[in-house]
Amino acid sequence: MRDLRTVFEPKSIAVIGATTNPRSLTNITFLRQLIDFGYPGRLYPVNPHADQILGLKTYASLQDIPEAVDYVICALAASKAPRIMRECVAAKVKVVSLFTAGFSESGEEGAALEREVVEIAREGGVLVLGPNCLGVHCPKAGLSLEGSIARKSGHVGFISQSGGVSSQMIVALAEREIYISKLISLGNAADLNESDCVEYLGQDDDTHVIGAYIEGIKQPDRFLSMAREVARNKPLVVLKGGTTPAGAGAVRSHTGSLAGSRVVWEAVCRQAGIVGVTDLAELTDTIEAFTYLKPPKGRRVGIICVGGGFGVLAADECMNAGLVVPEFPPEVKAKLEKCTPLAGTGLRNPVDTTPNTYTSPENLAATVRAVAGWDGIDVLIVAFPTTLAIKTGQQYLIDGLRAVIEAAREMGKPIVIVLSTYNFAEGEIRAWELQKHCFEQQAPSYFLFGQAARALDHLLSHYERVAREPLR
Amino acid sequence: MRDLRTVFEPKSIAVIGATTNPRSLTNITFLRQLIDFGYPGRLYPVNPHADQILGLKTYASLQDIPEAVDYVICALAASKAPRIMRECVAAKVKVVSLFTAGFSESGEEGAALEREVVEIAREGGVLVLGPNCLGVHCPKAGLSLEGSIARKSGHVGFISQSGGVSSQMIVALAEREIYISKLISLGNAADLNESDCVEYLGQDDDTHVIGAYIEGIKQPDRFLSMAREVARNKPLVVLKGGTTPAGAGAVRSHTGSLAGSRVVWEAVCRQAGIVGVTDLAELTDTIEAFTYLKPPKGRRVGIICVGGGFGVLAADECMNAGLVVPEFPPEVKAKLEKCTPLAGTGLRNPVDTTPNTYTSPENLAATVRAVAGWDGIDVLIVAFPTTLAIKTGQQYLIDGLRAVIEAAREMGKPIVIVLSTYNFAEGEIRAWELQKHCFEQQAPSYFLFGQAARALDHLLSHYERVAREPLR
Repeated sequence: MRDLRTVFEPKSIAVIGATTNPRSLTNITFLRQLIDFGYPGRLYPVNPHADQILGLKTYASLQDIPEAVDYVICALAASKAPRIMRECVAAKVKVVSLFTAGFSESGEEGAALEREVVEIAREGGVLVLGPNCLGVHCPKAGLSLEGSIARKSGHVGFISQSGGVSSQMIVALAEREIYISKLISLGNAADLNESDCVEYLGQDDDTHVIGAYIEGIKQPDRFLSMAREVARNKPLVVLKGGTTPAGAGAVRSHTGSLAGSRVVWEAVCRQAGIVGVTDLAELTDTIEAFTYLKPPKGRRVGIICVGGGFGVLAADECMNAGLVVPEFPPEVKAKLEKCTPLAGTGLRNPVDTTPNTYTSPENLAATVRAVAGWDGIDVLIVAFPTTLAIKTGQQYLIDGLRAVIEAAREMGKPIVIVLSTYNFAEGEIRAWELQKHCFEQQAPSYFLFGQAARALDHLLSHYERVAREPLR
Repeated sequence: MRDLRTVFEPKSIAVIGATTNPRSLTNITFLRQLIDFGYPGRLYPVNPHADQILGLKTYASLQDIPEAVDYVICALAASKAPRIMRECVAAKVKVVSLFTAGFSESGEEGAALEREVVEIAREGGVLVLGPNCLGVHCPKAGLSLEGSIARKSGHVGFISQSGGVSSQMIVALAEREIYISKLISLGNAADLNESDCVEYLGQDDDTHVIGAYIEGIKQPDRFLSMAREVARNKPLVVLKGGTTPAGAGAVRSHTGSLAGSRVVWEAVCRQAGIVGVTDLAELTDTIEAFTYLKPPKGRRVGIICVGGGFGVLAADECMNAGLVVPEFPPEVKAKLEKCTPLAGTGLRNPVDTTPNTYTSPENLAATVRAVAGWDGIDVLIVAFPTTLAIKTGQQYLIDGLRAVIEAAREMGKPIVIVLSTYNFAEGEIRAWELQKHCFEQQAPSYFLFGQAARALDHLLSHYERVAREPLR
């Protein structure tokens, strides 16, 4: 296994290509961010034409720095990369992160240049990130590639061949109170690749869930066995880019990778136990489920919602995602009769309760207890129409959320919240606010039943597989 | 064809079950809403224990009203329905909308009661809506079942077996500046059914697109031939509830309908030319596409976005939805080179432009003209990352949206906007704001590429079918 400690926790960093122009992309993306994020190591801008950049003493070249730097970020043009790499070898640098583009993604000439640079690095014992990458986000070590969020460490490891996707995931997860342990933007992955990262994060104690956006697999056999090994211990949730001919074409000019077909990818997922997802939203949703949910004992879901039509659609979504929606026995119906007041609403699964129930946290909690108390149910999905917050005020729903989550816990059943937004702005804005109250209580929440059902299916599939193939 | 003029434009309405309690559901759902919506006809509350309700003279019974009322809304208990229906027949009422639940959806006894009521009505020449329904929304005539929006008429006809779905659709469409021509909440559809409504809306000049949420088809053969007839002229976009066993179970206790299987439903869609959608969001998205887009000549899409990974995923989403993402010829690349400045970004389809391009509406418009000017492209999808609005201010993006939409129009190509939100609250809130600027200029906008691609596929499928089977 490649030792990536220096990749994620370098004691010193040099930025080659930093400039005195404060609007320079290199400064904003790297130097500024490291300073703002409170990087605790030593930071060296390198530029032969400046004495000081962003208040830091600046060096004309790598050789002038009074120590062997752990980690170099290089943002110079591709043509200069071989020279810089030789200088890094000479200066005993351990890791070089090449932000520079214009390598294998730009055609044959770039591919040859990429091979040359990697060869120099390997011979000299330097580990290369990229090229064409943003490098590393590791809040514990003060490294960041996304400056808009707080420096908080969490338990999600992430591997990405896209810098943009890396940034988006960091932000989208932080919105859900989920934080990164170690993230790596791999770019063209010419040296360090996805197999190395899966292997490393697989044994990293800070990482409980691994997410990935991958465009091409560099070492298919190794990846398959590595993923299979890791997926026995940790969920490995992967979005594969380039599963269509048009996507594969875009992959070639993005990271120079060979994307392969969807059929092959789906076979890899099945064989390795990878949780394959179809878009970025599902990737976030699934990581959220793995972060907040204890594994349910089975697929039998109890649904509580309001509105007969919405109940019908919720049941369809759950079954389409492979969940089971069992009929309630008479004793559950008898309990429900006491807490879901109106005639004409269904004392069945899905429970179609009334809008009024949501103004009584006690009734809501009693409804949840009636359903969750039955041993024919493994997990609950409870919908909250956020439009009610507009009519009755938000506090009712906040109290209701708390009551419902507590009631499910009391009965020992995992719970998923659906904040139904009615698909319009005010409803969505309320949902974003209410969501925080779910996360505070460690309950996952989604805006659509389909999202909740698919995330649950992914969670269950993982744990079913682990149970089938016990850990060695 | 059943004459539904009185259903949608009654000259007088009586509400049986209105009360002096201002918080009564019947008052809020019907009487209050009709007053607020400015219903121009004569309005008669009926209640033997009150002289006046909400400022309106109140009658002890239907017989006391000094005219033959066109339309009666009844909110009394199911057991009273046969008596009320006889009174309606005697009073020469034309339409009775039964809000009352407790009929076929509640079991055998309710089903028998439902048959009895419908029989009385049919013998007496009264048309019945429901039971278990909300009735009609027709802004032109001042009828509404959703009070939260302005009284605006549009061109979407809607048929729904769920009152909740009716309300949601009215609100979600209004958010997109799309308004209803005629909407009918059918409930159990014991008398007036979905085939009647499809037939009527099919020939209604105010209705250009028909949407529907249907749980069970009452007259399958008639529905199939009716839908086939109508779909030659107007898109018929249908969400079917109860396509799984659990959903079908929920349907029985919601509207007492027989739901049928997904396989059968999909066959009906193919045979009739129905645009079948899988959830409420897709229903809204598809109606939006039919409302704002002129039919593209074909499936060849030009994509402009920012971020290599996002381009890869956009291309995958488009191909997965059955769109074609053609390679650009050299002359398009040559034009792009002048307006997409950075090396390393793709001069290909999808165009991976730079964040900086979005601060120059001229460059953005030039990019669109370069792509749309090529006759190998039928339709454009242009992404705007709403997070840029947070960094650079919203005005850049508003100017950019206008420039891009104008440029596409200039080149005679339809355009779809994707407001990429990065899946977090601030991004989504910006997207909801920016969306308004798209609708102002009659361009559809979505938050995800997958949504845009699937809506485009539905639009194209409809027009391809119409072209294959020319209108008679």
